[in-house]
Amino acid sequence: MQPTEHSQLETLKQQLIVINDISSAGSLLYWDMTTQMPPGGQAARGRQLAVLGQIAHDRFVDPAIGRLLDELQPYAETLPYDHNDAALWRVTRRNYDREVKVPSAFVAEFFQFFSVIYDVWTRARPANDFNAVRDLLKKNLDYSRQYAEFFGPFDHIADPLIDQGDYGMKAASVRAIFAELRAQLVPIVAAITAQPPADDSMVRRHYPEADQLAFGLDIIKDYGYDFSRGRQDLTAHPYMTRINSGDVRITTRVDEHYFNDALFSTLHEAGHAMYEQGIDATFDGLPLATGTSAGVHESQSRTWENIIGRSREFWTHYYPALQARFPSQLSDVSADSFHRAVNKVTPSLIRVDADEVTYNLHVMIRFDIELALLEGAMEIDDLPRVWNERYTSDLGVTPPDDKDGCLQDVHWFGGIIGGAFQGYTLGNLMSAQFYDSALKAHPEIPAEIGQGKFDTLHGWLKENIYQHGSKFTAPELVERVTGTGVQVAPYIAYLRRKYGELYDLS
Amino acid sequence: MQPTEHSQLETLKQQLIVINDISSAGSLLYWDMTTQMPPGGQAARGRQLAVLGQIAHDRFVDPAIGRLLDELQPYAETLPYDHNDAALWRVTRRNYDREVKVPSAFVAEFFQFFSVIYDVWTRARPANDFNAVRDLLKKNLDYSRQYAEFFGPFDHIADPLIDQGDYGMKAASVRAIFAELRAQLVPIVAAITAQPPADDSMVRRHYPEADQLAFGLDIIKDYGYDFSRGRQDLTAHPYMTRINSGDVRITTRVDEHYFNDALFSTLHEAGHAMYEQGIDATFDGLPLATGTSAGVHESQSRTWENIIGRSREFWTHYYPALQARFPSQLSDVSADSFHRAVNKVTPSLIRVDADEVTYNLHVMIRFDIELALLEGAMEIDDLPRVWNERYTSDLGVTPPDDKDGCLQDVHWFGGIIGGAFQGYTLGNLMSAQFYDSALKAHPEIPAEIGQGKFDTLHGWLKENIYQHGSKFTAPELVERVTGTGVQVAPYIAYLRRKYGELYDLS
Repeated sequence: MQPTEHSQLETLKQQLIVINDISSAGSLLYWDMTTQMPPGGQAARGRQLAVLGQIAHDRFVDPAIGRLLDELQPYAETLPYDHNDAALWRVTRRNYDREVKVPSAFVAEFFQFFSVIYDVWTRARPANDFNAVRDLLKKNLDYSRQYAEFFGPFDHIADPLIDQGDYGMKAASVRAIFAELRAQLVPIVAAITAQPPADDSMVRRHYPEADQLAFGLDIIKDYGYDFSRGRQDLTAHPYMTRINSGDVRITTRVDEHYFNDALFSTLHEAGHAMYEQGIDATFDGLPLATGTSAGVHESQSRTWENIIGRSREFWTHYYPALQARFPSQLSDVSADSFHRAVNKVTPSLIRVDADEVTYNLHVMIRFDIELALLEGAMEIDDLPRVWNERYTSDLGVTPPDDKDGCLQDVHWFGGIIGGAFQGYTLGNLMSAQFYDSALKAHPEIPAEIGQGKFDTLHGWLKENIYQHGSKFTAPELVERVTGTGVQVAPYIAYLRRKYGELYDLS
Repeated sequence: MQPTEHSQLETLKQQLIVINDISSAGSLLYWDMTTQMPPGGQAARGRQLAVLGQIAHDRFVDPAIGRLLDELQPYAETLPYDHNDAALWRVTRRNYDREVKVPSAFVAEFFQFFSVIYDVWTRARPANDFNAVRDLLKKNLDYSRQYAEFFGPFDHIADPLIDQGDYGMKAASVRAIFAELRAQLVPIVAAITAQPPADDSMVRRHYPEADQLAFGLDIIKDYGYDFSRGRQDLTAHPYMTRINSGDVRITTRVDEHYFNDALFSTLHEAGHAMYEQGIDATFDGLPLATGTSAGVHESQSRTWENIIGRSREFWTHYYPALQARFPSQLSDVSADSFHRAVNKVTPSLIRVDADEVTYNLHVMIRFDIELALLEGAMEIDDLPRVWNERYTSDLGVTPPDDKDGCLQDVHWFGGIIGGAFQGYTLGNLMSAQFYDSALKAHPEIPAEIGQGKFDTLHGWLKENIYQHGSKFTAPELVERVTGTGVQVAPYIAYLRRKYGELYDLS
């Protein structure tokens, strides 16, 4: 590296870190809004988030950043592809070329708008009041289409939105994967639902909040979530947020009459957080310091929630501790029955509570609706009806109201419509592929899980996935780790293996 | 108002609100740092605070703000002095003319520096390690003198720093007030300390944290602190922070073996917070939306902590509830003995734990040392020695170490040296003056306190002090409310009245 290049690179890094400091201040304000803030703070908080969002955007699209990227291009091109500086240049260039297309005034306006629609939605959902959000949803659809148009030309209007969450994917490629998955999933669901349902009455007994939280914390400490660089709080909608490499927070919620809610959301968010905590600390503040795609992120949350946290080995180890903590609730329940209960498969109304087998059918409904809305093939006014029809036809259950129907997910009420849902299912597929690769390298992993040991798995994931942050795109990472692209078969094989033990799938 | 003036005023307000959104994002990040943040977040947080501080500064000193102020001057001059627009113009002009003198690079540098020295101090104090902060303190003294010089010429180098906290005051005027106060205080301290000390062994029994916190919360709800626009958390060093009019937070700390710590810091910070919560909500985001001076702010915290919270009437009402909450600790203690214990007068080492009578002697030591440091009459190397000599001569107690000596206060380790301490004593003086005025208007207030009712007092304070925010300067406000300037006599009369009941002061 020449002295000039060295100083240009340092300047670029410093500016990127400042921009990240501003946008992660916004992340902290959002975290505070959803976990700590007194109700009186709402109005000003939306304005604050908008201001910080706009400042971060404006600083990033500053032509000076573009010039630095231009000047550094020759240097970046001399480097091997997986050199950190090459990756930094590549990812920053990609983000810059994308963000520079979005006018600053639009950014400020939609940040402000999101805090309004989110606030209205938080009241409209419990009140089952679709009308309260109808006009705001129409406005959001306008914004979302306008936003997508900034990135034209495209084959499908959702393509730029999908690409932002899951780089390299398009509406057509996701549709193809989903069609293949649906074809294989539907017979499994049918085979399972033809059999008597698992008894999960014991997870609906009374589990006091403090004990539920303590039990979850013990497990994610074992997993390797580092509390010196994180914390857990309560929210309406569990999520993970990275402030910086030393501060990666998770949230959960507790239903004292439904054990699964707190524990599995804790394991899920811990999976997201361990990914972020595992990113190379020298990337901190740079565009490399984030999980590489929505799908890869979700693969990790689902690994720790489902592949590990709902496995037989896991419950073999943890059930005695659970029983000791909740003796009156579980003294009459065997580990086997409990394992079966937390893996109960049943078509249901709420995505986040859905079992592993039916979960992806929930995602496909949302994905199809998003595309139809963006295409103009469907109107916001049709949303409640279309939603309920799809639940009836795809899952055989009909939402009794919008609260547990089309108002249930935060996504369309706190961000762009489009590009948010496909990552959940892509993540499920990748989770099985990555885990297969981990098992190939370390066949001892399941036995270790049975002893409450996660070092080997966690170490392998850090080495092969986490440390890289966004250095490699999702398709590159999947290829490096598994030797193939995203595939449906390993996930179906995983489901068949696991649920074949619990149900007759012949 | 002409249409042009109207639009200029709206533009100015909008820009000021955005600037406030940025700086109050910084306040929230600081609050998070001291109450919630995992240890791993420290390094990036200092950088974030520096970035936000610099952005807020740069936006405020933008010449466009100066031009708007120039353009609005003719309009402002047509208005009556106490018109809100006139006050907004006046206060913004004053702040602008001050901030514009501080170079942006200096702001960024010292914000960053403060997070470093603060972080080192948080470890140096418990480790009793003055050497760990010695060089940083020297650097801070350099910064502080450099900062003061931006505002020259002045009579005394501390004048601009004092003026920022307590507008209208100078080193000379504070010295004159302090000399008068000291002359009257020393004989009272001598008279009290010649008598047997009050027994306060019962406040040093074991009081579980949760019960202490609950008891304090009950009282500040009665006081009128609005929890829908606030919350309380634990910190090492209690403080109040305003995010906006709907979000004014307080912090406290708990010592399970010293009852006074949590309760009186809670009452103290609630006093600060009620001031902020009481400011006219239409001022929110503007420079008017803050207490008008350090002294006036402290007058309110001390009113609710001491004049109310350590009064006989207060304990007549609350002692039965306290006894019911802590039966094993207090069954053998009368209300009278408890009231006497929480008003025990004894020369001590720690300012924040000092009784009302000796408290101001602690402040004077710090004020004199600050001035000597800034003048160059004293070096940082002399600080531990001079501090200990002054405690020995002024209070008759000698710090056994720096931990409970010159390292005890956060001020020199988290901000400019100078201008921070005089407000505490000015606040004590004003608290007595304001309370006398309240009693003149509503002689029933003490009887209401005896019934746990605070509406009349709180209403009077809101009407006469809180609502105005910074609309009037501290000297103006004191004059409006009391008809005089800051005076020593009412405070001495208050002490003589109160402690004359508890001790022989003849």
